[in-house]
Parts: sequence; structure tokens; C-alpha cells
Amino acid sequence: MHRPSFKLQLPEWFEEYRSRSAHAALTLADRMRLVIELSSLNIRNGTGGPFAAGIFLMDEGTLLAPGVNLVVWGGSSVFHAEIVALIGAQHKAGVFDLSSPALSPCELVTSTEPCAMCLGAIQWAGIRRLVCGARGSDAEAIGFDEGEKPQAWTEALKRRGILVERDVCRDEAVAVLKEYRTNGGIVYNAASNKKAQQ
Amino acid sequence: MHRPSFKLQLPEWFEEYRSRSAHAALTLADRMRLVIELSSLNIRNGTGGPFAAGIFLMDEGTLLAPGVNLVVWGGSSVFHAEIVALIGAQHKAGVFDLSSPALSPCELVTSTEPCAMCLGAIQWAGIRRLVCGARGSDAEAIGFDEGEKPQAWTEALKRRGILVERDVCRDEAVAVLKEYRTNGGIVYNAASNKKAQQ
Repeated sequence: MHRPSFKLQLPEWFEEYRSRSAHAALTLADRMRLVIELSSLNIRNGTGGPFAAGIFLMDEGTLLAPGVNLVVWGGSSVFHAEIVALIGAQHKAGVFDLSSPALSPCELVTSTEPCAMCLGAIQWAGIRRLVCGARGSDAEAIGFDEGEKPQAWTEALKRRGILVERDVCRDEAVAVLKEYRTNGGIVYNAASNKKAQQ
Repeated sequence: MHRPSFKLQLPEWFEEYRSRSAHAALTLADRMRLVIELSSLNIRNGTGGPFAAGIFLMDEGTLLAPGVNLVVWGGSSVFHAEIVALIGAQHKAGVFDLSSPALSPCELVTSTEPCAMCLGAIQWAGIRRLVCGARGSDAEAIGFDEGEKPQAWTEALKRRGILVERDVCRDEAVAVLKEYRTNGGIVYNAASNKKAQQ
């Protein structure tokens, strides 16, 4: 039986990184440092923009699935780091809802605060906590666009039972954004839009 | 070389439908009716929720790529109808930006107004027009959740150069939502969230 499918290719370096990072129990700061390292590796390997994310088991401190920005590599504007991480985690765990009782509570750690799309995706994914490095304004400062987000979006997530931690290793995350801009990284934007997308 | 990938399986009936629908030039109302038919077929084939979408070439009135809600089928909360349609269209056209000069202007036709995630995705995809059937409030009326959207989201899209048409064949779109609810369709929600996701 022919079963058509979409495929999202993942870079080889990324898969190797995932293999060696899966079993370590990490502090919150070290989870963020892992994600920031991924954002830097994504630039250096030429596979995407300066954005990375990871789904971690909150209590164990272990990585369930990482994600990097693969808009150009994956051929779709949908493939932001958070989306890649969420799909990867849900496939790995075999659930479309990460708050399934079969799974330990999950959190999304992201090198930069989520754009409008990823903020929406977070509300459906079943994560219990969102942990952010750089602020959205840091991404905007180097030319990226956050999209139209609700005002007071952190409060809106909290009302839905999703905790939010901001500014975790913010300076280290911002350093990667600046490195990308300084080195003339690709600005992948919709031509019809005024600004670059995150 | 081993190249890992995500796969999104597409139902067979969906692929057959796509094959026979690709070449007809349709009026705006008939584009919406095609999408509403897809939302109904998604229920009847047992492959997902009562939501469908399509990317059309605006001037030609032809279907570039359809999408249906595949959250359960595809194993990820990300796979809303609009997301499936956008990824499909970008892969088919070979561009991550549908506003590429190599492509005729594109529009997203959706059976129900986009949730918070899909509203964000629309801002990055390069579409020129969003055409909606049922209102978000119609989906909420049968228990689905829209997520946290900015107030005045239609105005926000217009400021970004994306036209918005609402209430196109709204009654026909709402009829499918009601059919789903009446027949006890699956409510696929994140257990940590209070309401069902769209």
C-alpha cells in the first residue's frame, strides 16, 4: 500500500548530538546551556537560524527531544525550533499530548522566547513549563520578528496551567543571536512580510 | 548515509481526493465548499477532527495543497489542518515562502478561523489572503478552544499585508462542526488544558 508522507530531514550533526545528550540529568541552567549550544551549532553547521529548543522531563532533567530552526533546511516556514522539538518529543513518546499520564511532566526550554506561532503551539502540546533564554525583544533587536502575540502572554499561559521562566542564561543566549547577525547569517523571511521571521 | 526524518503519514482517501481536485478553477465560494467537504470527509473516514484547509493559487482558483486535521493520526498536536496544508504547499512548490516571486499569489482557505498557533503560522508562510468559513466562536460553541489570540487579529494581519475574508459559506461550515459534535466525535485535548484544542 502506497502511503504518502511529508518528511522532515534532520541534519546528521543534530542526530549525533541527540544520541549523546539523552541520558544526562541536568540542572535548569544546564538544560538552557545545552539548548544555547544547539543554537550555536545550528549556525556553525549551516543548517539554520540561531534558534534552538528542547523538550525535557522536568523532574528528571533529561532531554526527551531537541529542536533547531530548520525553516530553510526543512523547506517550510513552520519548522521553527520549538515546533521541531515538539513533533520530535511527541513522536518519541508516542503521544500527541505530552501531559499524558503515561509520561513524566515535560517542559519546553527555548533559547529565545517563542514567536506567535510557537506560543500557540505550546498551548496544545501538553507541556507544564516554558523556560526562555533571550527575550523576544533581543531577537527583534537583530532584525527578527516575533509576530502578533497577545499582550501579557506569560500571564495567559499561566492561566492555562503552564509555568513560565524567563531570562535563564539570557546573556549567553543573546551572545549567539549577536554572533549570527555579526557573521551575516541568512535572514529567511516571507517576501510579503516587512520583517524577518524568528 | 542514514538520514533521520519525521514522517507525517497522509490518509489514502486524502491523497486520492488531492489527485482529482488539483486542476479545477474554482470560485471563492467553491474553494470554500471543497474545504468544507474535506472537513466532512475527515470525520467520515475517521482520520481526524472537523477541520480542513487548502492553499489555493488566488488568481487561478486552483488547489495547490489541501490539509485536514491529523493531530491523532499524525501523532502530534502541531498537525492542525492549516499546518498540514502549509507544509504540503511549501513542499510541493519547493519554497519555504509562498510569497516567492517564482510562485503565483497564494491564499489559505480554512473551514474554521485559525487558532492561535495557525494564526501565527500564517504570518510566516507568505500567503496573501486568509479566507474563513466558520468563526472561532462557532468552534468554541461546540467545545473547541481557540487559544490566546491577539484582540483585533484580523486588523493585525491586514497591517502585515494579508487580506482577510470571513463568513464565506459560514452556515455550511458550521453544519459540519455540529455534525461532529452530535455524533460524539473525539475531543483531542491536552489533559493539562481545560478545553479541547481546535
